[in-house]
Amino acid sequence: MTSRAEGYATGRARRDQIVEAATELFARVGYRHATVLQIAQHVGISRTGLLHHFGSKEALLEAVLSRRDAEDQARFHSGVDDPTGIEAIRAWVRLSRHNATVPHLVSLYAVLSAEACDPDHPAHDYFVRRYAGTVAGFESVLGRAQRAGLLVPGADPGAESRAVVALMDGLQVQWLLDPDPSLMGDVLQAKLQQLLVVPLFPGR
Amino acid sequence: MTSRAEGYATGRARRDQIVEAATELFARVGYRHATVLQIAQHVGISRTGLLHHFGSKEALLEAVLSRRDAEDQARFHSGVDDPTGIEAIRAWVRLSRHNATVPHLVSLYAVLSAEACDPDHPAHDYFVRRYAGTVAGFESVLGRAQRAGLLVPGADPGAESRAVVALMDGLQVQWLLDPDPSLMGDVLQAKLQQLLVVPLFPGR
Repeated sequence: MTSRAEGYATGRARRDQIVEAATELFARVGYRHATVLQIAQHVGISRTGLLHHFGSKEALLEAVLSRRDAEDQARFHSGVDDPTGIEAIRAWVRLSRHNATVPHLVSLYAVLSAEACDPDHPAHDYFVRRYAGTVAGFESVLGRAQRAGLLVPGADPGAESRAVVALMDGLQVQWLLDPDPSLMGDVLQAKLQQLLVVPLFPGR
Repeated sequence: MTSRAEGYATGRARRDQIVEAATELFARVGYRHATVLQIAQHVGISRTGLLHHFGSKEALLEAVLSRRDAEDQARFHSGVDDPTGIEAIRAWVRLSRHNATVPHLVSLYAVLSAEACDPDHPAHDYFVRRYAGTVAGFESVLGRAQRAGLLVPGADPGAESRAVVALMDGLQVQWLLDPDPSLMGDVLQAKLQQLLVVPLFPGR
């Protein structure tokens, strides 16, 4: 008989395994095409066993998305509070270069965000909120950079924030189809540098 | 009894209906999740009846993609032969504004290109070739613009062509999630104008 603490630890490890398997399958074949049974088989448990941990396929999707968001949060929001925005802009490039090391997560977002454009998709509202939040966050950073005199004359933080988010997403699809390791980071860095009147990474 | 000509015309109309229904369903739920039966039911025929016209779901996918390409070809490649490239660059903006009128086709490409990042997807090779061809075409146009003295100093047609293609793709996903009618065209036009030392659309 296991102690309660051991039981919790086992349950948590199993939940992690399930989320990992679901992430991999959603990334490969999409949320809609993936089945709970396939995910359960990948972990070596029954469908009922999986549904004991996550009550539905939708609950599993939520778990996959929130874990991914939590992981990105630290990396992505480093420097988001610097007064000129430049640290946050550098973090975008670092995130993009980091993404080249985790193709299954890049694929997960590409596939799910495209699927979720359908208003009937269970992650539709999540992606609507996520894009609005990301664009607003980028706009705030670029607005600070502008007030600090770091942006080229005439730059529009509203349009530029949409453009940077779009560029990052579009580069991900190109990179998934043709995995050149430096594609995403190099193109993004070059385009961000064009927006700035100071070197983005001085001394490189 | 119908004449042979009438028979051909009927068969062609039916094939058009099937391709239309498949386009709509692939765009909404993805290729993998869509079934031949659903498409057949949408047209009001049996599964066997559909397979008489298109021997497999993959053959149907090919038909959907080639019809879409043929439709874009005329619009997209207008001006592709002008010596300075400026007409082709204008055509990219026009294509983007046109896309805002055909959300189901934009959705089709967003969903299929993301699904097709998986090497096992039947459209994988199609999308690899399509992206390589599109990026190469854009690079050739921007190279001509550069030789004609139309690009800002230091612009790199190779990186810029990838960035423009990525921007167009990424804006499509944002627009599908938040359908602001001018989003795609306005942001793209502003970003292309930043690359040019001449007005992209003089007098506007």
